[in-house]
Amino acid sequence: MIKVGIVGGTGYTSVELLRALVQHPAVELSVITSRTEEGVRVDELYPNLRGHVDLAFSTPDVAVLGQCDVVFFATPHGVSMHMMVELLDKNVRVVDLSADFRIKNAQLFAHWYDQPHVCPELLAEAVYGLPELNREAIAQARLVAAPGCYPTAVQLGFIPLLEKGLVNTDSLIANAASGVSGAGRQAKVNNLFSEVNDSFKAYGVQGHRHLPEIEQGLGLAGSGDVSLTFVPHLAPMTRGILATLYATISGDGDIGDIQALFEQRYADEPFVDVLQAGSHPETRSVKGANICRLAVHRPQNRNTLVILSAIDNLVKGASGQAIQNMNIMFGLDECAGLDSVALMP
Amino acid sequence: MIKVGIVGGTGYTSVELLRALVQHPAVELSVITSRTEEGVRVDELYPNLRGHVDLAFSTPDVAVLGQCDVVFFATPHGVSMHMMVELLDKNVRVVDLSADFRIKNAQLFAHWYDQPHVCPELLAEAVYGLPELNREAIAQARLVAAPGCYPTAVQLGFIPLLEKGLVNTDSLIANAASGVSGAGRQAKVNNLFSEVNDSFKAYGVQGHRHLPEIEQGLGLAGSGDVSLTFVPHLAPMTRGILATLYATISGDGDIGDIQALFEQRYADEPFVDVLQAGSHPETRSVKGANICRLAVHRPQNRNTLVILSAIDNLVKGASGQAIQNMNIMFGLDECAGLDSVALMP
Amino acid sequence: MIKVGIVGGTGYTSVELLRALVQHPAVELSVITSRTEEGVRVDELYPNLRGHVDLAFSTPDVAVLGQCDVVFFATPHGVSMHMMVELLDKNVRVVDLSADFRIKNAQLFAHWYDQPHVCPELLAEAVYGLPELNREAIAQARLVAAPGCYPTAVQLGFIPLLEKGLVNTDSLIANAASGVSGAGRQAKVNNLFSEVNDSFKAYGVQGHRHLPEIEQGLGLAGSGDVSLTFVPHLAPMTRGILATLYATISGDGDIGDIQALFEQRYADEPFVDVLQAGSHPETRSVKGANICRLAVHRPQNRNTLVILSAIDNLVKGASGQAIQNMNIMFGLDECAGLDSVALMP
Amino acid sequence: MIKVGIVGGTGYTSVELLRALVQHPAVELSVITSRTEEGVRVDELYPNLRGHVDLAFSTPDVAVLGQCDVVFFATPHGVSMHMMVELLDKNVRVVDLSADFRIKNAQLFAHWYDQPHVCPELLAEAVYGLPELNREAIAQARLVAAPGCYPTAVQLGFIPLLEKGLVNTDSLIANAASGVSGAGRQAKVNNLFSEVNDSFKAYGVQGHRHLPEIEQGLGLAGSGDVSLTFVPHLAPMTRGILATLYATISGDGDIGDIQALFEQRYADEPFVDVLQAGSHPETRSVKGANICRLAVHRPQNRNTLVILSAIDNLVKGASGQAIQNMNIMFGLDECAGLDSVALMP
Repeated sequence: MIKVGIVGGTGYTSVELLRALVQHPAVELSVITSRTEEGVRVDELYPNLRGHVDLAFSTPDVAVLGQCDVVFFATPHGVSMHMMVELLDKNVRVVDLSADFRIKNAQLFAHWYDQPHVCPELLAEAVYGLPELNREAIAQARLVAAPGCYPTAVQLGFIPLLEKGLVNTDSLIANAASGVSGAGRQAKVNNLFSEVNDSFKAYGVQGHRHLPEIEQGLGLAGSGDVSLTFVPHLAPMTRGILATLYATISGDGDIGDIQALFEQRYADEPFVDVLQAGSHPETRSVKGANICRLAVHRPQNRNTLVILSAIDNLVKGASGQAIQNMNIMFGLDECAGLDSVALMP
Repeated sequence: MIKVGIVGGTGYTSVELLRALVQHPAVELSVITSRTEEGVRVDELYPNLRGHVDLAFSTPDVAVLGQCDVVFFATPHGVSMHMMVELLDKNVRVVDLSADFRIKNAQLFAHWYDQPHVCPELLAEAVYGLPELNREAIAQARLVAAPGCYPTAVQLGFIPLLEKGLVNTDSLIANAASGVSGAGRQAKVNNLFSEVNDSFKAYGVQGHRHLPEIEQGLGLAGSGDVSLTFVPHLAPMTRGILATLYATISGDGDIGDIQALFEQRYADEPFVDVLQAGSHPETRSVKGANICRLAVHRPQNRNTLVILSAIDNLVKGASGQAIQNMNIMFGLDECAGLDSVALMP
Repeated sequence: MIKVGIVGGTGYTSVELLRALVQHPAVELSVITSRTEEGVRVDELYPNLRGHVDLAFSTPDVAVLGQCDVVFFATPHGVSMHMMVELLDKNVRVVDLSADFRIKNAQLFAHWYDQPHVCPELLAEAVYGLPELNREAIAQARLVAAPGCYPTAVQLGFIPLLEKGLVNTDSLIANAASGVSGAGRQAKVNNLFSEVNDSFKAYGVQGHRHLPEIEQGLGLAGSGDVSLTFVPHLAPMTRGILATLYATISGDGDIGDIQALFEQRYADEPFVDVLQAGSHPETRSVKGANICRLAVHRPQNRNTLVILSAIDNLVKGASGQAIQNMNIMFGLDECAGLDSVALMP
Repeated sequence: MIKVGIVGGTGYTSVELLRALVQHPAVELSVITSRTEEGVRVDELYPNLRGHVDLAFSTPDVAVLGQCDVVFFATPHGVSMHMMVELLDKNVRVVDLSADFRIKNAQLFAHWYDQPHVCPELLAEAVYGLPELNREAIAQARLVAAPGCYPTAVQLGFIPLLEKGLVNTDSLIANAASGVSGAGRQAKVNNLFSEVNDSFKAYGVQGHRHLPEIEQGLGLAGSGDVSLTFVPHLAPMTRGILATLYATISGDGDIGDIQALFEQRYADEPFVDVLQAGSHPETRSVKGANICRLAVHRPQNRNTLVILSAIDNLVKGASGQAIQNMNIMFGLDECAGLDSVALMP
């Protein structure tokens, strides 16, 4: 059994890691840390885990974590990089759900995350954990930086087009709506029920931290730099992201060909589901499941393609994908622990 | 493998049956019927099942259903009783999620369901499928009548008290709130999003069809007739029932003793979870899981006990419990297919 | 024009006071205070007020408030009592939306609010601001303690029965569900969208601060002490309270007579609406309006009466009622500023 | 007093007309029709109107409607055109909230609405009721076609840019999310609470009926044809539209100049509110109010402008705007009946 540790155990990505891990046939949960909830039973904070998890939170301790085979960081940004060198030295493998190792350029990281990177020498080694792009590198990685939620939805929607050079890369648009769990479990007025319920808004239009991550990924998928306008929105729901992507066709853009391209590109991917042309994936169809559902449109047969990409921000956008990475890293069945069917209705 | 058929496949209890069955190690889904959606793929109606279910709906046909080992009826009330004799004659075992065989008194059924019962001779044989009361009879049953959603939550909360005669039985109160999925998937104005969202109401105060079912069950659990005031409410959520139960203490009613009683009564029940005294179960802590979470209170140490009982109306209140019944009927692990952890947040 | 001040201007009751006051023909808004938001424009925090309110928050200053004709306290509990003597000395009249002057017994206040009362000598003078009970005293009052939200809904539902002695007073039950705005605008994890959405729970079953207030009021309405079991619930909606009240009939309890009693009792009340027998008021039917809608039931013609009482917790349960009090205090049309129609859907 | 009739009185736009009309100082409600609810009191269907509206629904009768000064059509598409000639002949003025007279080209109407237009001769005379574009023509009109909800939000956001020729008109994008009330009060499975709650989706990507209406309006505002990609989404909320608009800058596009342009363009408009640069209007800030709030962004100072436009689909997107049109037609204060403050939270 693979011994698993979780650092930063009180957030929503952590409870989602646990929901999958307790159903995983090949892992054993060893330790879960939280400074603020030390000594509190995990199932007191998350009663859905009663009968499934018999641990209490402990203060993070590298000596203890160092005995794990793999450690997940479910921490806010700026935490994992302070523990990473020491952990890797103990031959622990790491899947980091935070942003600390996603961006290859340390200056860019410092600009968007308002702090210098403390171990930039690891940035080159860190593997960006989008299996659909980097499966082989993930298998060998000591350190995987699991993608952000928006970046997962947006990249999976654009990748086939960029790999084939079918759209202009200087005017991509990603309009995305997220459930509120994406903002985490911190006590903030903006995320109160009474502030969010029955309302809808855009936020961060001037610049969201996921923008450089997405542009980095899309640039690698295509043949060069891309320029993306990214507008996130907050929807009055707990989970789910729908990214509505717009791209201008650069070639003839036959929609049948594009549909076929998407189907081929993802034919062997267990967690990407290309719907038939003209479909409209709902976020509820992926709720609780590690899956991205995609649909391709060319409205009015004009020059703008519309790609719809739906994920559960906490699963394929975070914890499910993290476990998918772990499965790849340890040579397990990539789907182990990830076969839950989405909850609908 | 046990061959399973489902009659009435388009409703919410049906998709929940399927969500569990596709993860069940010992069953094979043979047929799923719907008159209105004949020929339509199941995963077209319920895209969460893409990749998991490869069937299309067919018109109900007793010859086909008769080849199953077990048939689930997920039909509106008044359907299953018309097919039951014929099916049982083919040695099919049946779990009926509708109300047709729940009420032992045919006149009472006719009164509350506005139609005569067409096979009252089967009412005595039908086993009321609450495993916590009737596990042994269920194991032997040809025909199990799975309880309604409210009745499950209410009975599990009152049973320990009634079995021990600790409360007055002439003034029980069950105040319950349900998510909207309890009303099914029929197109009715009252269940439109814009009619329900951000609002709360009682309904059916004059008399709800689950009242006679609950009173029948509570009477059997106790030593005689009970009189219940049952007030259901509609809450702006998809799933979940919270029953808030009130009973007047007839003895000394020490709350420590009552807590211990509940813990002992359900100690061996895999799907009843007694929380520590003073807890407040949330419906989200059972979302998608086949579990009933209970908490016991005696406010101000006065004479009124308050029991809180939370279930997912579609799981422990319907489809999960139906599969639990099937597992018992076929001598399988009672938890097979039912180990999903609730989705939280 | 009546000069109005508001202390504690950033909470939800404050924005509701403002929504009504800007449409009030006889008042002028002079000052609105907040220590944390000093200098911030009111319409920056509450953009719905853009074009309607041209003030910024200021630090509370008794000298400034002392120039108002009336001051509303929309503060947390334990604030107004520290400023009250000084303000009243300046001949300001006060409507206090907090709990500081609701409970006549200083010891009881101290017990439930975890702090001693600092001016118990004013408790006798303070008038409990339920116009349906105390209209004449309100008209003369210097200091009105506006009722809590649950207490308003519960008392209006029980009062006619208690005044006539028609029910047992030792076993009253109030089962109530509230929208989340009742918890205020403080940043607390428990009130985050992702914690509340699509879920339902009871809370405070062991004892809620509104219990002594309700029992005090019901005792005054009836002929002596009452014993109430009060169970509040949190519903996934922003506004609204539905109180479902249970009482055991002590006399013959003819439901027609009881319906007539309710209609007569509230015939002249502009803000209490008795629905026809058998109705089920929805909270959305009172959203944004200063109205309590009541319905009376006697299910199965048994001995338990069920009264349904719906209000908007922020309006008839707080700010609307506060303005109703002000109108009475200043001899204005009681409905001035309060004629908004509920927003439905 | 202006005598008002409403045809098609049971839908959501109708109850919103009534909510405004009962607070309007210069109108008298004469008749409200519904074939299906004939004889039913209006306040039975919409209890928020209890005490405000004392009418029952009647079957539509041109003789009766002909005695009104103005008739509002709140009917589905394809109804008003069958009564229009006869009504106008009786010197009734009409505000049509349906689509029948919005599109000037009868062939285009027939294509998108699947039926031939029965009185195309009136299309040229009908005035498109967007006051911000057509105030003078509205004042003189016999027949006003009130804009659709999406078209209102989208046009108000693009108009200043198109009037000045500041953006490319061949690649406009309107990504919009609407509350569910926009789908009306018809009993359809797709709009059930359990189908919509806690989920988000795009719909009609292949072509939505509002597309030709928007393109027609934008073409008139600019100097020629425009090509728009319009993707509507369904958000789990009752009311509100947020349109997120994307346009490529054709000139230098200084954001300060564009902000100033928007402020000047709408300086005298009572129902358009330009927020300061960098703002993010929430739909709840316009809930129940006849206002459009706009914000202008130029992310990263790149070439794509982002305009955010928020309205209440039932108010500025339907009934409030219809009354604004009536006020203009009858020379009343344009704001009469429309001064409600949005309900927040």
